[in-house]
Amino acid sequence: MKICWIHPTTRNDGLSRLWDKLDAVVRPALRPDTELEFRFLARSGNFTRSLYAEHLNSVHMVEAALQARDDGFDGVYFGCWNDPLWETREVLDIPVASVGEQSMLAALSMGKRFAVVTVSEKTVAAIENDLMAYGLSSRAIANPVRSIMPESDGGLLLGSVDDPHANFIPRLEAVAADCIRDGAEVILVGCAYYGPLLRAAGYGEIPGTGVPVLDSSTVALKYLEAMTDISLKLGVVKSNRRHLKAAPREALDRARASLGLI
Amino acid sequence: MKICWIHPTTRNDGLSRLWDKLDAVVRPALRPDTELEFRFLARSGNFTRSLYAEHLNSVHMVEAALQARDDGFDGVYFGCWNDPLWETREVLDIPVASVGEQSMLAALSMGKRFAVVTVSEKTVAAIENDLMAYGLSSRAIANPVRSIMPESDGGLLLGSVDDPHANFIPRLEAVAADCIRDGAEVILVGCAYYGPLLRAAGYGEIPGTGVPVLDSSTVALKYLEAMTDISLKLGVVKSNRRHLKAAPREALDRARASLGLI
Amino acid sequence: MKICWIHPTTRNDGLSRLWDKLDAVVRPALRPDTELEFRFLARSGNFTRSLYAEHLNSVHMVEAALQARDDGFDGVYFGCWNDPLWETREVLDIPVASVGEQSMLAALSMGKRFAVVTVSEKTVAAIENDLMAYGLSSRAIANPVRSIMPESDGGLLLGSVDDPHANFIPRLEAVAADCIRDGAEVILVGCAYYGPLLRAAGYGEIPGTGVPVLDSSTVALKYLEAMTDISLKLGVVKSNRRHLKAAPREALDRARASLGLI
Amino acid sequence: MKICWIHPTTRNDGLSRLWDKLDAVVRPALRPDTELEFRFLARSGNFTRSLYAEHLNSVHMVEAALQARDDGFDGVYFGCWNDPLWETREVLDIPVASVGEQSMLAALSMGKRFAVVTVSEKTVAAIENDLMAYGLSSRAIANPVRSIMPESDGGLLLGSVDDPHANFIPRLEAVAADCIRDGAEVILVGCAYYGPLLRAAGYGEIPGTGVPVLDSSTVALKYLEAMTDISLKLGVVKSNRRHLKAAPREALDRARASLGLI
Amino acid sequence: MKICWIHPTTRNDGLSRLWDKLDAVVRPALRPDTELEFRFLARSGNFTRSLYAEHLNSVHMVEAALQARDDGFDGVYFGCWNDPLWETREVLDIPVASVGEQSMLAALSMGKRFAVVTVSEKTVAAIENDLMAYGLSSRAIANPVRSIMPESDGGLLLGSVDDPHANFIPRLEAVAADCIRDGAEVILVGCAYYGPLLRAAGYGEIPGTGVPVLDSSTVALKYLEAMTDISLKLGVVKSNRRHLKAAPREALDRARASLGLI
Amino acid sequence: MKICWIHPTTRNDGLSRLWDKLDAVVRPALRPDTELEFRFLARSGNFTRSLYAEHLNSVHMVEAALQARDDGFDGVYFGCWNDPLWETREVLDIPVASVGEQSMLAALSMGKRFAVVTVSEKTVAAIENDLMAYGLSSRAIANPVRSIMPESDGGLLLGSVDDPHANFIPRLEAVAADCIRDGAEVILVGCAYYGPLLRAAGYGEIPGTGVPVLDSSTVALKYLEAMTDISLKLGVVKSNRRHLKAAPREALDRARASLGLI
Repeated sequence: MKICWIHPTTRNDGLSRLWDKLDAVVRPALRPDTELEFRFLARSGNFTRSLYAEHLNSVHMVEAALQARDDGFDGVYFGCWNDPLWETREVLDIPVASVGEQSMLAALSMGKRFAVVTVSEKTVAAIENDLMAYGLSSRAIANPVRSIMPESDGGLLLGSVDDPHANFIPRLEAVAADCIRDGAEVILVGCAYYGPLLRAAGYGEIPGTGVPVLDSSTVALKYLEAMTDISLKLGVVKSNRRHLKAAPREALDRARASLGLI
Repeated sequence: MKICWIHPTTRNDGLSRLWDKLDAVVRPALRPDTELEFRFLARSGNFTRSLYAEHLNSVHMVEAALQARDDGFDGVYFGCWNDPLWETREVLDIPVASVGEQSMLAALSMGKRFAVVTVSEKTVAAIENDLMAYGLSSRAIANPVRSIMPESDGGLLLGSVDDPHANFIPRLEAVAADCIRDGAEVILVGCAYYGPLLRAAGYGEIPGTGVPVLDSSTVALKYLEAMTDISLKLGVVKSNRRHLKAAPREALDRARASLGLI
Repeated sequence: MKICWIHPTTRNDGLSRLWDKLDAVVRPALRPDTELEFRFLARSGNFTRSLYAEHLNSVHMVEAALQARDDGFDGVYFGCWNDPLWETREVLDIPVASVGEQSMLAALSMGKRFAVVTVSEKTVAAIENDLMAYGLSSRAIANPVRSIMPESDGGLLLGSVDDPHANFIPRLEAVAADCIRDGAEVILVGCAYYGPLLRAAGYGEIPGTGVPVLDSSTVALKYLEAMTDISLKLGVVKSNRRHLKAAPREALDRARASLGLI
Repeated sequence: MKICWIHPTTRNDGLSRLWDKLDAVVRPALRPDTELEFRFLARSGNFTRSLYAEHLNSVHMVEAALQARDDGFDGVYFGCWNDPLWETREVLDIPVASVGEQSMLAALSMGKRFAVVTVSEKTVAAIENDLMAYGLSSRAIANPVRSIMPESDGGLLLGSVDDPHANFIPRLEAVAADCIRDGAEVILVGCAYYGPLLRAAGYGEIPGTGVPVLDSSTVALKYLEAMTDISLKLGVVKSNRRHLKAAPREALDRARASLGLI
Repeated sequence: MKICWIHPTTRNDGLSRLWDKLDAVVRPALRPDTELEFRFLARSGNFTRSLYAEHLNSVHMVEAALQARDDGFDGVYFGCWNDPLWETREVLDIPVASVGEQSMLAALSMGKRFAVVTVSEKTVAAIENDLMAYGLSSRAIANPVRSIMPESDGGLLLGSVDDPHANFIPRLEAVAADCIRDGAEVILVGCAYYGPLLRAAGYGEIPGTGVPVLDSSTVALKYLEAMTDISLKLGVVKSNRRHLKAAPREALDRARASLGLI
Repeated sequence: MKICWIHPTTRNDGLSRLWDKLDAVVRPALRPDTELEFRFLARSGNFTRSLYAEHLNSVHMVEAALQARDDGFDGVYFGCWNDPLWETREVLDIPVASVGEQSMLAALSMGKRFAVVTVSEKTVAAIENDLMAYGLSSRAIANPVRSIMPESDGGLLLGSVDDPHANFIPRLEAVAADCIRDGAEVILVGCAYYGPLLRAAGYGEIPGTGVPVLDSSTVALKYLEAMTDISLKLGVVKSNRRHLKAAPREALDRARASLGLI
């Protein structure tokens, strides 16, 4: 099966060590017959900690998803906790996964209550909105999404490519300790990149607690493999009633044209 | 105070009787010192029953809101149940109201449980998502948003400008009867246009039930007047923490530029 | 429009500096055509931190509301978080607002999660009961209503008329810091008096947090203006089904007579 | 132990057949050492289907409870679904039970989901408010409180003293059938009188369904016996923190005096 | 009435001081006509902190309950927070109570929010599962079940037979303080044994807080007396629809035979 | 990877056409490198519509799971909606999936609200308990699990091996129509066998509605493949804190020995 990982930004060559590392860490976890392609957006405002800017960026992400479908991919993965998940599902007839929804679902089978530790207050907002919309509040702790402090920045991210222990992990563990005290049994890394980086560094559990720290990206991709196989072999992708019922192509084209997308 | 009603479409002259009627019905309900201006979108895919198309259209709606702010308006009203409410609030420092949120809040003070009767299955989906996100499920009936059948179309809408009794009201009452049986004490009209049209026709209650049928648009505008006055006289518009904290202008501009908006 | 602010006590001349200050702070925030009258109860046990005593006091508050209606007021405001809100709505055909419900609704449009910081453990109980009854728990933090410590007393209140910084604000900020750590984006002042006093002192935000501290009283009055205008211009006040359906006058009179109220 | 059943009305001699029947049906279900006394209110507006009138009537009910405590009763039972349960608990140091709370708690141990079938739309409102406040919605069906139609009146009640089969039971079964279809496993009779009358008539289950119809009054009294014994033998009645913490006697007296109660 | 207290273990003579103490503390709290018999399991893996091991042990507990029924008991009490409550109710036609469900229901009438302080992390898990299944989360604090630290062991238990003050109470109070800060008004002792031992030592409230510490076992037994009396005098034990509908004896025997139980 | 499908019964040769059909339908949907083995229980009371009998049967199912682990399987699938899911997860260090949990999680990504249509009232009870425990009520319709009528029996099942259209599908569609009217967008078949049989017959959607009817068994197996791959390649199976923390082997053996299992 062919899977398209859509990054939420244009390609930033300054982060090429990150891109290489992601490739090296994620690919071995996939099925032998899964072809994974990383794609960057053609246009993007790039990372902006803003609900509104992410709304704009989601337009580019759906465009990339439409392109992926046209290019014959069997499944699409949104590698960002800010994602146009349901809007994309509505218009596509192939499975669409996100790091957020799929890793939360996986966490439900791994423990009673989870928490998400993320990288900025604004990401907290986005993830919390999704968690509430997914109806999963009773399976997460109170105040279920929390950010490391200080927030992540480019330096922290690049530094963590080689060694997350120096700076990222101490911030993570400070927040995670509070989450565990409040009942968390599973910690999701609320970022598509730090998860694989932690795993690459052999870090998978808050020491001494029994609480796993999930590489949300890879876990989500594994669930997407399942969703895609269900699509290919059982022929079912989604409901075609109400929320995810597709609109006519011409109507969508009219909407896209209004934004100069076609 | 200056209020900008933003329509979710470009101006369709074929509906000019509707636009005139809205103006005639809504304006007298406003405060004497409220200046209301109706604005249409410069570009739009226009009505498309699609979560995705509405996501695209929301981009235009935020643009219109930004323009309204720059033009000196004191408050913005989104005249559509599909709206970019929180994204716009994040970037604006003036109050933003929507027909959905404000009319639901008003309904909370009018009875114990409300229901929304809307015009299509797709609008059901959009409104239900909002209702859940607003955390109001326990104040609405089970299956709280329901559509008239057959769904609304241009003919039904235009016909209702002069007389909603012939075709719209019977469909409304059929759904409303079920809602009332299931516990609804207040019915919100899940459309920015039919509400004023019903009121213009003197229709404000499901006959014989004591259940009011709210002109959601006008009710929402009245709440926006309050929000705007609070802004002007108390100086408070919103929280600047987490969900609604504004991002830097340059970051937003970068995102807008990526879509050719500036 | 004519609005009646009903105080939950008889007039205590020892607090006349407070009454004057409230008048001076609140009135300028109202619409030019709003006539506000402060009324005290004819009889009252006055402030008693007790669910039961407040139940008794509510009888006097409804009496004052009935009198206000008879005197031609267009809307009634209960200036106390202990209030007979729904009982009064049932018997009146004009809008009734409370500092509690209206300020909570306003908070919903200002941020994702709110908290109420109030002045005694007993007020915590009353407000928490209302918050649960209003179905708003998912929009507030866990343990959503918290009291300053030590609790407020007459000295603290009178002292805050001129300067809330000395004693009230430090207590407020100690509790608010915990609320914000637990996810609060908006703080409501859980008292009808301290809110205006804080605003008079230019205090509107927990410093350095972006979290507004709402003058719940004035905010609620602004919402009441909207509700009253909706009543006057749209003709709709409430549902007349089930919860708020009015009982016959003679039945109510029988009940009132049993308490010697008529 | 001495238990005081407080009726929510003055004694209506026109209903003496009812009072005699209640006595005859309920007393044999009590413990041998339980002394039950039926008391009527000294003053009351009597049955009024109104949230407000019931608020007033609750004042008389608390008075009766205070008197019962002074007269040496060990426990108080409010024989009406409209009750000042928590206000009374706050001021008393003996157990207080209501037909509503205690029968709902009993239902929780008898099946997964319950429903309450009551006698008027207004009683629906009162019971639904309590059910939500008790936090039991997830153990009841959707739209969990429903009224017989036509509503009950004096004729129906008196007629049911001798034979509820003729008129009451058919109305009950019509509503109950809907409740069972919607998932109810237990039906509570939402009236303090019809429950014992049904039991006297040997009616305890919706025929052919396995769904018991609970005599809520007697069930609640049995729970009160347990609560009272816990009080007498374990010395614990309630929490003395926050919601149920007692206020000083003089403060309460001041409040009562304001209503001429002392 | 005859009540059977079923211990979740075989009789451990090393704990005979505990068994004697329980008898001495609990029996005086029962009704004069209640015959209480303590029974131990014929076979058991005994205390194992494991969901799975408790599942196995529950098989023995149901066996003991079936035997109790056959031996003419009128009610069954499971003296352990790990219990097969609903499975046993399904097969028995006499009331079945558990320390968990009955004490939680009792707590609902004693305050607004409760917490359970238990003796190990694994017991936390079991109790939290039940609390969620009973639908009582909104009446408990966030993270509602918490364990003393270090966890309880045989030494702590035996030592507490004579004096819980030395070691158990300090651990209890450390956790309880957090619970009270988070809103708890009632503390349930999450163990069938420590509750009676605390009561025997005259300990019934977290000092200075007004928060009662409930002897959950005795409280639950008192509720069971009520349930049993309801069964004996009203003839109603449970719903016979869906969840608790009994299966045919021969089917159950087939299942029991498969485990060599008959 | 090696997957073990554990049937909840001993092998009934009278159903061999069913077993063959399941094999023929399910196997092609799996990954090429997945080895699936169907295993029956060594001992079982076999199908018994009883919470208690299923509790006993779960003992056998865990035994089979332990055996599967010892035999080198990489993942375990419980092919029954009555399952010891969490108890087994606690004791195993390989992934455990159930038809219930995994298919519900899959449904969450396919639409906003799902319903489960099952085969008997007793299965309704079991599934509803799980759905509530999983915290998914807000993503399912009200009264979310419903049974076909008349309930399924051996004849219906065997008849459906060749042709579910004659008898099963009409019963399914009658219930499904109600579910869809109440908001269901996805229907899960609440039985491990009918799902594959429907799929074999080419039936995958309630005609004319856009609502998919999920072969829950196969969907769950696909998710188990993902879980197992996550285990094998990422090394994470579950949390080892609180709910799923493993108990010592000797403690479990003691518990198993008490039932003669070892």
